[in-house]
Amino acid sequence: MKLGLIGLGKMGFNLAQNLLSSGHETVVYDVHREPGEKLAGKGAVPVRSLKELVSRLEAPRIIWMMVPAGEAVGHVIEELKPLLIAGDILIDGGNSFYKESMLRAEQLGEAGVHYFDVGTSGGTSGAAEGGCFMIGGSREAFKRIEPLFQDMAVPQGYLYAGANGSGHFLKMVHNGIEYGMMQAIAEGFEILDKSGFDYNYEQVAKVWSHGSVIRGWLMELAENAFAKDAKLDGIKGIMQSSGEGKWTVETAMDLQASAPIITMSLLMRYRSLEEDTFHGKVVAALRNEFGGHSVIAND
Amino acid sequence: MKLGLIGLGKMGFNLAQNLLSSGHETVVYDVHREPGEKLAGKGAVPVRSLKELVSRLEAPRIIWMMVPAGEAVGHVIEELKPLLIAGDILIDGGNSFYKESMLRAEQLGEAGVHYFDVGTSGGTSGAAEGGCFMIGGSREAFKRIEPLFQDMAVPQGYLYAGANGSGHFLKMVHNGIEYGMMQAIAEGFEILDKSGFDYNYEQVAKVWSHGSVIRGWLMELAENAFAKDAKLDGIKGIMQSSGEGKWTVETAMDLQASAPIITMSLLMRYRSLEEDTFHGKVVAALRNEFGGHSVIAND
Repeated sequence: MKLGLIGLGKMGFNLAQNLLSSGHETVVYDVHREPGEKLAGKGAVPVRSLKELVSRLEAPRIIWMMVPAGEAVGHVIEELKPLLIAGDILIDGGNSFYKESMLRAEQLGEAGVHYFDVGTSGGTSGAAEGGCFMIGGSREAFKRIEPLFQDMAVPQGYLYAGANGSGHFLKMVHNGIEYGMMQAIAEGFEILDKSGFDYNYEQVAKVWSHGSVIRGWLMELAENAFAKDAKLDGIKGIMQSSGEGKWTVETAMDLQASAPIITMSLLMRYRSLEEDTFHGKVVAALRNEFGGHSVIAND
Repeated sequence: MKLGLIGLGKMGFNLAQNLLSSGHETVVYDVHREPGEKLAGKGAVPVRSLKELVSRLEAPRIIWMMVPAGEAVGHVIEELKPLLIAGDILIDGGNSFYKESMLRAEQLGEAGVHYFDVGTSGGTSGAAEGGCFMIGGSREAFKRIEPLFQDMAVPQGYLYAGANGSGHFLKMVHNGIEYGMMQAIAEGFEILDKSGFDYNYEQVAKVWSHGSVIRGWLMELAENAFAKDAKLDGIKGIMQSSGEGKWTVETAMDLQASAPIITMSLLMRYRSLEEDTFHGKVVAALRNEFGGHSVIAND
């Protein structure tokens, strides 16, 4: 098939390689010139503007956006919208908030453009070699783009999830689960580390990856990480987050869904961003006030 | 090899099949006669007492216990101890508390008997077809029993973890991680269920099992469960626990290891055991006291 791909960052670049290796004619655009030139060597057609991208595709077009959620997606759509016509398909493969995707689908739908919110999982290696895709949008129009997913996903690695929003919602919740699973695994190793036993964490992660109940890709990644740095001495335990966990928690609140593990996993990430905490000072001060318990003074 | 197997419940029975299919001469004992007779048809030698089991094995013996943790293990060891001699190997493949295993290893070690605490994971299917084993005990004596693990485990599915206690400790923490991972997955589906989107949970678990970051055995089991009962309408959300999660949390407390996710997963299981809670009544009553907020009266 022929399609346009907008955004050639870590995920987009790898997706482009994936598409090209399956023989899809891929017109690529990025604000930076370099990744498109690299992909040209692999058969992609790099262009220098969205307008050029649209003109290089015959209607009804298929355009895949792989740009950062939020303003970037908004800007691309704003620029694309007047260039697209009824029947064109626009796919957001990034991590947009599902409510924004529902709104965009509605707005583009008024012009007859089919919008798809597609959650993409599997990391950069998945994007390049076969990922997992959760797809929201028109069931009818989906048939036109299904061959793309058959090629880009691992076998059985894509799902038409339902109406617009359902794809990004599913990906959001996937990431919330990911927060909880990662924190659970991490706390296990925390306990091992304080146990006094002399475990080799790489070997532990390896045996847990083979035949145990908790085997899975995250445990395999833990094995990789410990193989590179046996006790992770080289890095700090600062746990960044990129927003999907927070959305999952906010959504759980909105829905009055009891999700304490996912919530706490997010809060533990925030805790990790601070060396000291104000709540810690308050508790220490109160213990001192009522019981004379000693506090540790700042230098 | 030749060995004795004590305890032919769900796990022990399947382990026996595993051992027999690898050609090991297995003398089997259980308080119930039936499972031993079934295994006799597959080549096992069933016996009617621990004394007979010991007499059917030549020293130095290898005996594997697969009996419920706690008193049952204690009783078996009490009865076996006078029958064993220096050089014999006794393996506890169940979920004993690691401190008890350390004590038992010390006591049996005084008589020259090598004790191994072996955590077994992979469920009943793993026991039958290839499981995951975490092994604590003498490194030297381990060499004698290593061939058993090579046959019983999936490839790379066993680890000599270190001194006595380290095997059961590792299995305990494995189960703690399992609690957290299961609760994280479950909360994700809880949010999906309240979302208003029309997800097919079997398909969701299936796509998440193929190429996603959160893929793993537990997600595959979720797919199986939803395949049998699309919304799990047939069962109640009562989450039993068999003790290892509680030990993990108690151990985390003892070690002052920060493990809120594993802890909360355990507490959510306890919450699920009660239809109503006393803390719920207290909060409702206090809201009523200070703000006149309505309470729901018991019939």
